[in-house]
Formats: sequence, structure tokens, C-alpha cells
Amino acid sequence: MSGNTFGRLFRLTTFGESHGPGLGGVVDGCPAGIALDERMIQRELDRRKPGQGFGTTSRRESDQVRLMSGVFEGTTTGTAIGFFIANEDHRSRDYGPLQHLFRPGHADITYQAKYGIRDYRGGGRSSGRETVCRVVGGAVAQEVLAMAGIFVSASTVELGGIGLEAVAGSGIPRDRDAVSVDADAPDALQNRPFFAAHPDLVEIWEDRIKTVRSQGDTLGGIVEVQAQGVPAGLGEPVLDKLDARLAYALMGVGAVKGVEIGAGFAAARMLGSTNNDPILPAGFASNNSGGVLGGISSGQPLVIRVAVKPIPSIARSQVTVDQDGHEQELRIGGRHDICAIPRIVPVLKAMVCLTLTDMLLLHRAAAQWQS
Amino acid sequence: MSGNTFGRLFRLTTFGESHGPGLGGVVDGCPAGIALDERMIQRELDRRKPGQGFGTTSRRESDQVRLMSGVFEGTTTGTAIGFFIANEDHRSRDYGPLQHLFRPGHADITYQAKYGIRDYRGGGRSSGRETVCRVVGGAVAQEVLAMAGIFVSASTVELGGIGLEAVAGSGIPRDRDAVSVDADAPDALQNRPFFAAHPDLVEIWEDRIKTVRSQGDTLGGIVEVQAQGVPAGLGEPVLDKLDARLAYALMGVGAVKGVEIGAGFAAARMLGSTNNDPILPAGFASNNSGGVLGGISSGQPLVIRVAVKPIPSIARSQVTVDQDGHEQELRIGGRHDICAIPRIVPVLKAMVCLTLTDMLLLHRAAAQWQS
Amino acid sequence: MSGNTFGRLFRLTTFGESHGPGLGGVVDGCPAGIALDERMIQRELDRRKPGQGFGTTSRRESDQVRLMSGVFEGTTTGTAIGFFIANEDHRSRDYGPLQHLFRPGHADITYQAKYGIRDYRGGGRSSGRETVCRVVGGAVAQEVLAMAGIFVSASTVELGGIGLEAVAGSGIPRDRDAVSVDADAPDALQNRPFFAAHPDLVEIWEDRIKTVRSQGDTLGGIVEVQAQGVPAGLGEPVLDKLDARLAYALMGVGAVKGVEIGAGFAAARMLGSTNNDPILPAGFASNNSGGVLGGISSGQPLVIRVAVKPIPSIARSQVTVDQDGHEQELRIGGRHDICAIPRIVPVLKAMVCLTLTDMLLLHRAAAQWQS
Amino acid sequence: MSGNTFGRLFRLTTFGESHGPGLGGVVDGCPAGIALDERMIQRELDRRKPGQGFGTTSRRESDQVRLMSGVFEGTTTGTAIGFFIANEDHRSRDYGPLQHLFRPGHADITYQAKYGIRDYRGGGRSSGRETVCRVVGGAVAQEVLAMAGIFVSASTVELGGIGLEAVAGSGIPRDRDAVSVDADAPDALQNRPFFAAHPDLVEIWEDRIKTVRSQGDTLGGIVEVQAQGVPAGLGEPVLDKLDARLAYALMGVGAVKGVEIGAGFAAARMLGSTNNDPILPAGFASNNSGGVLGGISSGQPLVIRVAVKPIPSIARSQVTVDQDGHEQELRIGGRHDICAIPRIVPVLKAMVCLTLTDMLLLHRAAAQWQS
Repeated sequence: MSGNTFGRLFRLTTFGESHGPGLGGVVDGCPAGIALDERMIQRELDRRKPGQGFGTTSRRESDQVRLMSGVFEGTTTGTAIGFFIANEDHRSRDYGPLQHLFRPGHADITYQAKYGIRDYRGGGRSSGRETVCRVVGGAVAQEVLAMAGIFVSASTVELGGIGLEAVAGSGIPRDRDAVSVDADAPDALQNRPFFAAHPDLVEIWEDRIKTVRSQGDTLGGIVEVQAQGVPAGLGEPVLDKLDARLAYALMGVGAVKGVEIGAGFAAARMLGSTNNDPILPAGFASNNSGGVLGGISSGQPLVIRVAVKPIPSIARSQVTVDQDGHEQELRIGGRHDICAIPRIVPVLKAMVCLTLTDMLLLHRAAAQWQS
Repeated sequence: MSGNTFGRLFRLTTFGESHGPGLGGVVDGCPAGIALDERMIQRELDRRKPGQGFGTTSRRESDQVRLMSGVFEGTTTGTAIGFFIANEDHRSRDYGPLQHLFRPGHADITYQAKYGIRDYRGGGRSSGRETVCRVVGGAVAQEVLAMAGIFVSASTVELGGIGLEAVAGSGIPRDRDAVSVDADAPDALQNRPFFAAHPDLVEIWEDRIKTVRSQGDTLGGIVEVQAQGVPAGLGEPVLDKLDARLAYALMGVGAVKGVEIGAGFAAARMLGSTNNDPILPAGFASNNSGGVLGGISSGQPLVIRVAVKPIPSIARSQVTVDQDGHEQELRIGGRHDICAIPRIVPVLKAMVCLTLTDMLLLHRAAAQWQS
Repeated sequence: MSGNTFGRLFRLTTFGESHGPGLGGVVDGCPAGIALDERMIQRELDRRKPGQGFGTTSRRESDQVRLMSGVFEGTTTGTAIGFFIANEDHRSRDYGPLQHLFRPGHADITYQAKYGIRDYRGGGRSSGRETVCRVVGGAVAQEVLAMAGIFVSASTVELGGIGLEAVAGSGIPRDRDAVSVDADAPDALQNRPFFAAHPDLVEIWEDRIKTVRSQGDTLGGIVEVQAQGVPAGLGEPVLDKLDARLAYALMGVGAVKGVEIGAGFAAARMLGSTNNDPILPAGFASNNSGGVLGGISSGQPLVIRVAVKPIPSIARSQVTVDQDGHEQELRIGGRHDICAIPRIVPVLKAMVCLTLTDMLLLHRAAAQWQS
Repeated sequence: MSGNTFGRLFRLTTFGESHGPGLGGVVDGCPAGIALDERMIQRELDRRKPGQGFGTTSRRESDQVRLMSGVFEGTTTGTAIGFFIANEDHRSRDYGPLQHLFRPGHADITYQAKYGIRDYRGGGRSSGRETVCRVVGGAVAQEVLAMAGIFVSASTVELGGIGLEAVAGSGIPRDRDAVSVDADAPDALQNRPFFAAHPDLVEIWEDRIKTVRSQGDTLGGIVEVQAQGVPAGLGEPVLDKLDARLAYALMGVGAVKGVEIGAGFAAARMLGSTNNDPILPAGFASNNSGGVLGGISSGQPLVIRVAVKPIPSIARSQVTVDQDGHEQELRIGGRHDICAIPRIVPVLKAMVCLTLTDMLLLHRAAAQWQS
């Protein structure tokens, strides 16, 4: 239980370091009879690949996933789905100068404190590279969800402090976007740089990134994940609520510092009469709840937003300490992202897919006697 | 796994409805040899009792906890700690008019969808009353944490949109409070109305509540939980991070709509060079991380903030539907809170205590070989 | 996770000591919509009560169970089912002479080693009295199983070394009984002393117990549990097989020293051609497998047998040590059983009910896509 | 939770089919700082390899394990240990005649019932080949146990109905072997054919196997696993006892039909005065308990025995049905074992190693406050 498994019935277990032979894992609990092949998974992986977006790392990895088990003649068999992704571009460069330094904002210092030993090559297990395995698991989950009519999408709603309010005529006022459903066709969204929630944001954000890059600095942003078609009834109250599990899933991605559902932090400033979503014969009149009431899905779209901190590896010189506690100057070389966005977007989507599939199976386990 | 157990090694399992015989549960995994008696637990329970704060329900419950097992001659024995709290003031009033209506913002409609049946009396299992059991579990956890030198406190930093910036000369600028450590003596804080982060806020908030009450409306707020003395090394990366578990714990409390750690959502708008906490020989120079790096505690104080939505039971008339989907007017009577604060504050503290104790045990299970 | 919870989806959590206020627990994961009341549970509890069988303790406990939650108007609501059973006859006698001695065959010495403290009154948590909670959980499970057409029964097939071969004309040769299905009507079995597998065994066993009692000694026996109506498909291979879960459930009852399924240990001496159960168009021709193949139920009856050791509390004087390691003479007074049978029989049945309900829910969680 | 993970804190998750690309898994929860390399694991794997013993399959697999993560410069880092073993000799023969038949004694029929689909090539996931992954996990666990001074060994005490009583002058009377500690030096045992508990048994068993092979039939046997150096205190009563977990571990290996601890089934026929292990100042005077009292280790050696059924794949013609329920004649070709022994012996040892490591971590998590 040292933290490499996610989920209860639909479970993802992962392994792998940034500079070892590769990364992989096991998807367990996938129902039998789901059509699945490597191309479906590869498509999702390709969306988080280095070089896909603007301002990302120059590390080259083809990230080719190989399924090892659990699929027979194109269909899941109900047994464990093993998978592996080889590390290709793990340059055997000299880590000498960096290996004893603790990079600010990174997990170097905490891994050392926890384990007394760490694989310092490229962050080892704490590298963002581990998220490839989450995307694989999420891609399998997505196929299960599709059979239940559930569709998850994720978009960037703010980058470097610039959000939807910057887009003239976007029609999405700032204090409403939290609870609105993105009207974009998913395909358009998936192919748009940054997975931007609005096409006019792309150029603005590209300019912002150029400026910040020239300053040797980095940026954060806010990502919104939505799930359409979620039936009412998912979530296990009282101590395993759907929104709690979603928060767990999303806060568990590196660089995420906040999670809110529906109106989120804005709800803390509303009056009850405004925040309550009226229930009409035709359905809910608003979605400040974000699709969850009492920890159980309401049948409305799930709307959840995530704060992503700026990449800690900046090009500027920083002061830090080495393992002996002595002050040192740190200069991080080369090929790092300016912003975790857009690469984190498919990862956040994957975590929601994993969570919803798990909650769907949990709900179905017990839901049959009463219907 | 229908959601009534929290934790992996230090586990709280609860039961009970608002209007049944009572509520109770089992604390499992508590180490042997911890001094514990009912008074220690009662003190925490008394802090969330109805009538303790301003603007709270008029329901009268003494909330007397009785320990049923697991403690022998004042010391835990390592066996399961059973406890029970009787419901006293569960008026057998006529629920006729309410029992078929779905109250907006409540879990009536989702419980009905999930289970096809619900105990409609006072919210049944979805009543906020279930949180008494969390406070009991948290109180036991607090004693374990005390032996490890860990101290958790919680305070209200914003209510009805009015936060620390409203306090002249408070010395806590708005964009810093997220990461500052409250300087109040814990005892002062614990006895202050609203568990307000600053004494001057009390009167301002009382005025705000009076106004809103007169309008038949309700309020939300923001609570900050801090943990001092947390050693570096707690948290199980990659898929069971400390911040993920804290988000799970806190988002799992009814009325919570958002969770952020350290700089939180503000971090999404910072530059990397600003957000990074420099590491100096004397320790970290700031705490934008909120005490967690890579999912593992850094040794700094944990700082986590929670958005609490306004109470959905407002005095105003509302439109809703009944179980048959017909439109109905809803008028909720009597004795309800204006704001979940201050009663939710001890609950949020309890959830952090439960989480940290669990993570402490998890860490210790494996941490012995390397030291 | 200190061992007071059983199950994954259908979960029983228990607490309570022999001489505290009482015992109780929580049944979590029970589907909504199951008819349930205290009388159904009481009927099962009455079957393991002191004084029910021959050769049992003289401790008088009415063992009245009280449901605290999870049932509304006679039907389960899907929420946690809390229950409590008060200890009535926990004589506040002087434990002085016994409290520092380790009774041979009991858990006194191991609890002391594990926890450094123990509730020495009547065995505390290690008392056989804890099994009342298992029977409550099993009784709830039984109602779920009934809705799925599954029926579990348990009978004693051997006591004090005397088994079915002692019964002239019983028609059940010794080496076949492992796999035969008991032909007794369940009601007859449930009301027969010892829950004896054959009526003629009762008198023989009564004589045996009388003799052994007069010698101040105690006896063991063998219990067979069968489950009819189990559909093919239950069990989660490879590392959570149905037979593994059954062995876990049954070996986890105090006094059990062995578990075998189908032909069991006899299978180790058979040839493959004899042990294999031929598959015919009409079904399996024999049941040496005991109803499980590859860890998954085959659709045949489950047949599992359990070895129960003699009660360690004998009337004879024994030599032992005290907590300081000094040799002491031990004389255990009064009111103890001669044999764990028949009181353990309902407990073993309950454990199988709990296991099957859990495996049924686990299977159903994933089984819907392929059908 | 479809059964591909074993353990709570020290966890093994596996995947892989008999005729896919290979098998592998993840060992999670291994403490940091343990010396580990592929040779240590390979040594254990080589002990279960085809061709190692007499009467085993002719399938040739080098079973070379490759570690993918979790080890850095020869030491565990506390992160997930991924591993992979390629299938080499998975002949792409024509499965046409066999693919629709249900082999008696195999899991073909139950996998089909459970999943509605199965990888019929060589048993797919239900192949005994999956046990390579258990051996890998057990080998890692063994290194952890070694640091705690715990040593696990396994030997065959009976094969084809011929046990230790057949060995003249063996000095180990039949009814005592259950509780005696094997005096063989572990190294001698590990290198002896069949891992025979006594050297004189080897020739007798070889003769027996020759005869049975010539008849086209197969054999079972009994394996005893012992653990020396287990400290008192391991095991989580009441519902997660050490003996329950051991029974779960061992009954969860394919072909195992019974598990007994200490005196086991013989205890059911003993008097209490005989079965009780007297406690003397110098320690226990006997070990009928098998090293567990009340579900907690007593400090004595663990002694547990396992019944292994004969291999179901016999050379003789059998009658069975196909997937459509029509009667068919079955002739299983070629290269199958006569007896699961000796290849199952390292697997059973591995399962005990996995279980003890898990229980050791569980115990240590809570055991620190009281010491």
C-alpha cells in the first residue's frame, strides 16, 4: 500500500522510473467483453506526449504502449491487463552536479526524507513521466464508460492568470464558467492547442508563454474536467463520496494544488438562495453543485476544476541546499516544460475516467436488488 | 465498501441516521497504550454541538459519547474501539408534508435515485448529524498524533465573503494567509466564536449573519486547517499522496465544494520563480507548497483550505418537485443553521487528524528498515 | 486494519469484549431493498446461544440484538447497519488469581506479546463471545443470499473422533462424505442437537461428552458447511479465489485448525483419473472439487470441512507461567464448554454466508457487460 | 479487485497468460534499503522451473526475470518494483481440437461461465504458469524477512499417499510430523528432489511416479511449510488472523484442496489435555498450535500443511462436453506434469513469505507506541 495502486474494483497499479528501462502497470477489474486494442490507448497517450503542445519539453519519447495480457482477439477477458512503455530517450548524461541537490518545488527532498535513498536520475519515480501509466489506465476506463454512455472531457480554462474573461464575446462570463457545460465539440477541443476551452485563447496564451520563457520562468493554469451522461446514483456516502473520490484522484496528480466542484470556492461567497439549484419537473435549473449532491451523482454533468502550479524547474539560477544541508546554487539545464498544461490535461481526464469507472462498478455491485 | 469506512490502517467505520436510536461506529487500528477516556472525546464533540456557535440550529442534543470497547483501565488495548451516541431530540413530528419532496441542495433526490428508498426523517443517513462520528474518530486520532508531536488546528478565515482583509491591521495580507501559520494560541482559537482566525472578525460576522437571517437566507465560508509538527516523509506516492488523501478527507465532508493546499488556486496564477519555496540551510523560506512536495510531507506545517457552501435549508419558499416529479412549493420549518460554520470546523479538523494518523501508521510500517 | 473488518464489498466490522458493556458492529455494503428485522437475526443468534446444546457453558446471555440503523420500515436502505448486543452476565468476580496467568491454548500470551496490555477479563477481545457479531453479519448476508437462491447449511460430521462411519446403515461411507450433499431437510438439521449430520449420532456423541466431562477434559470435532444454489462464476482468480476466501473465513474462527474443500486431504492420495469430476451433458458426475474449479464456483454445491480443536479450558490442573515467566499451577473454574460444537456451527455457517455475499457482489460488479 | 492483487501493505499484483507475450507484476510496499538484485529472485524461480524435478513437464522456459523499477544500484528505493518474464516456448500449435472442450478438473468451464470468454491457449490466465509471479514476489519478501530474522522453508511430506511413515528409522512418527521442526539443513532440502522431507523418500517416490506415469495417470501429495524465527505478535485478530491469512494464501494456489496448521485435522480427534501446548518458563513444551494462538504468532515455528490434488491433465482418454454442452472425448497431448510436486513447493513457500512480510509490516505499523 505504498501508493502505487488506484481504485477499489477497477484498479490501476503502476511502476516505473524516469530513467529506468520503462514504465508500466496492471489494470485490474476491467469487465470482460470490452473491445480494446493498443491503438485506442495509444491515441490517448499521444495527447500527452512531449512535443505535442507549445512550450513543452524537448525530450523525445514515442511512448509506445504494449499490452501484455488480458485482451484476447481484441476483447477484454476479465483478467489483469498488463502493459509496458519503454523509456527510449533516457540520456545517460552525467548527473554528478545535480544528484546531491534538492531542487526547489520538487520531491527530491521529501523522497530522501521518506526513504533515505532515491533514484535521482530525472526525478526517478517522482518524475511527471509516471503519468503515462495513468493515461493508459484512463484509456481502458474510457472504453468501459463509453458502454455506459458516459463521456469525459477536459479543457484548459485559464493559463498564466488569463482565463475566459479575456476572450471578447466568448459568452462565458467568469463567474458562470465553473458551472457551464462546454459547448465545443469534443473533437475540436481535443485537437486544439492547450486543449483550450475557447479557440481565441490559444494565441493569447502562446504570447504569454513566449514572454515567460524569455524570462526563464514558468506558468500554471486551471483545467476543467467535465463528465456527461453520468447517471444519478454513483458515489458511496458517507465516507466515500463521489466528489471526495474525484478530489482524491485529481489532487493526486503532481502539480495540482486545488480542486473545486461546481461553484467551488465561489459557493463559499454565495447566499443559499443563489447557490441552491432549483429542481424543476424538467430537471435542475442550474448546476452549482457540479453534479453531486450528498456525495452521489445527481444526473447532471460533473464539473470539476483543478489548479495547476507553475513548473518548478525554471531556467533561472536558484539557491538551494545539498543532501548535507550546505547552500548551493542550482542551475537546471535544458529540456523542461514552461507549463504543465497542456500535457497534464489528458492525465486529469484519465483520473476522472478511472474514478468514474470504479464508482460505476461499486454502484452496480449493490444496485441490482432494488431495481 | 458502501462508503461507511475511512482509512486504511487507522480506520473509522460509522453508522446511524438522524432520527434513529443513535449514531456510532468503530475506530480500528488504534495502537495499544494510548491514554484515552470519554472526557477527551466529549471535549471535541462539545465543540461541534448545536447551540455552540452563533447562528446554529436549535436542536438540542447532549451528544454524550459512550465507549463500548477497546479501552481498559484508561488505556487503549489495540482492539476495536466501539462507541455510541444516542439521539435524544428526534421529535416524532409529522413528516407528512416533507417526506415526498426533494429539498434543493440536499441529498434527498440522489439517495432516492441510488437506493430506491430513503429514510426521509431529518435527512436520514445524509444528515449533517453523521459528523458526530467523525469527531469521535478524530478525537481518538488526535491522541495518537499528540504522542508523535503533531498538533492540528482549524480556523475560519472567511464567512459570507468577509475574510481577513476586512480586519484593519490584522497584519495578514490576503494573498499570504494561505501559507502563513496562525499565530493565535490554540486555546484562544478554540474558545473564540466561529473559531475565527482573528478576534476582530467575530463582531463583523455576527452582523453579517443577523442580516442574512432576517432575509431568510444562509451563508458559506472558508476554513483553514493547519497541522504543526508533521515530520517529513508522510504520504505514499505516486497514487496515494498525502495531499490527495487530505483532499479526499475534506471534500468528503458534506457542504465542502473546494479544497486547496498551500497557495492553492493562487499558485495557478504565480510564476514558478515566485511559487517555488527556496530551500535554505535553516529550512524552507516560504510555504507555498502547504507542506507537501511530491505527495510527501516536507516537514513544514500543512496548510489546507476548504470552501463551505451556504446551508441549503433556507427559510424562504422554494420551488421543487416531489418523488413523482410534480412541481411543489417547499417551506422548510424551524431549527436550522444559517451557516455550517462554526459547527463544521471541528469536523474538518477531525478529518485531518484521521488522515494524518493513518498516513503516520502507513509510513511507519515500512520506515524501519532504512533508519 | 487491525483485523476487525471482514469482506470487501459486503463488510462486517465488529467490536466488543467479553466483559465490557457489550459487543456490536456494522454491516456495510448491504444492498437496499432487502427485508430485514431483528427477529430474523435473533433466530440465528439463538442457535449459538449458551445453553442451546449439550456440553456447553452455563453462562447465561439472552444475546438480544438491537439494530441501530440501516433499516427503515422493515427494509434495508443501503446505508450502514449498526447493531449492538449487551453483555448481561459478565459477573464482576475477582480475576485476581487468573489475571497474570497465561492459559495454555488461549490467546493470553500472544495478546500480551502483541499489545503489551490486555483485558484479561474472560479473554477480553479474544473470547469466543466475539462470534455473536459474526452470526449477526451472517444473518444479514443470508437474507441477501436467499434473494439470489443460495442456501447455506452446516452440520457436524465428527465429534471426539466419532464420525459418520459409526452410524450403521447411514449410507454415507467415510471417504465419500466429503463430497456428498446432506439429504437432511434443513429444518430437521437446524433443530437437531449438535447440528448432527445424522440423527443416530446424537446419542453416541452425548455419551462421549459425558465420559470426557467426567475426566475434566474436552473434545474437538469436524463441521461440514455446504452451500446449495451457488451459481457458476463466483470467485476472483488468480489471487482472490473463492476457495481461498472460504479458507480465510473459516480458519479465521477461533479453534479452527484445518480447512478442506471437496475431497480435501483425501484428494492428495487419489489418482488424477479418480479425482477428476467428469463433465457430462447433464452436469458434473461427482463433486471432488467441492464446487470450485480454478478458484471459481462451478455451479455444484460448495462442500467445505473444518477441523475444530478441543476447548483449551479444561477442568484439570495445568502447569503454566505468569506474566513474569514464573511457573504457576492453573485451575480454570466453572462454566466452560466441553466442546466448541455445537456453538461454533452457526458461526461457521455465518462466515460462509458473509463470504458468498461478498463474492456475489464482487462478481456482479463486473458481470454485466458480457451478459 | 478482480483478484490479481495479494496483500495489504506488502502487495503483489500480477498479470499474464500462458501463451501471451509473458507474465509479470508489481511488488508494492517493499521497504527501502533492502539489498535486491535479479539473481536473488532468479534462484527462487529456477527452483520451480519446468524440468527441475522428476515427472514434470517438458515445456522449456528459461523464466528469466527482469526487474523494471524500484531498485537503484542494488537497493530497493521504496517505490514499486515492476518485473517481467517473457514466454519463450509458447508453441503456436493448433488449438482447434481443444479450444471448445472443457477439460475436467481444469478451470475452462468456470472461466467460460464467469467471463463469457476465455483465452483457451494453454489455460490462459488459469495456467499454473501464473505462479512464476508469485515466486518473484515471494523472493522479494524473503529478503525482507531475512532482515527480521525469519526463515521460511517448504518440504514434501507425502506423495501419492506415501509419507514419512514409509521411511524406516526416520524417527519422525506419522502423528508427530505435523508439529515437528524439520532438522534438515535448508540447503540440503532445497537441492533434494521433490524437496523431500527425508532423503530416503526420494527413491520410493520416483518408483511410484514411474508406475503411475505408465498408467497414464497422475498423483497428488502433501507439502509442509515452516517458518522459523517468527516473533510473537504477528497477526491481526479477530477477523484477520495470521492463520486465516496463511490459509487464504495457500488455498489460493491452484491444486490445493486443504490447509491445516499445527496438529490440524488430528487436533479434532485429540483431548484438550493432549492438544494444549504447556507453557513452561523455558517456552512451549509442544507445538500442536502450529505457532499461532488466537490468530497471533506465539514465537514458536509456524507449521502448516497443504493438500495438493493430482494433476487433472491425465494421458488417458476422458469424457467431457464442449462449449455447446455436447459430449466429447478428450485426449490431452504431451508435455504435462505427473504431479504438481515438486514445482508447487517453491510457490507455497513464496505465498507464506508474502503473507508473513505483509503481517510483519501491519504489526509494525501500530507496534511502536507500546514498546
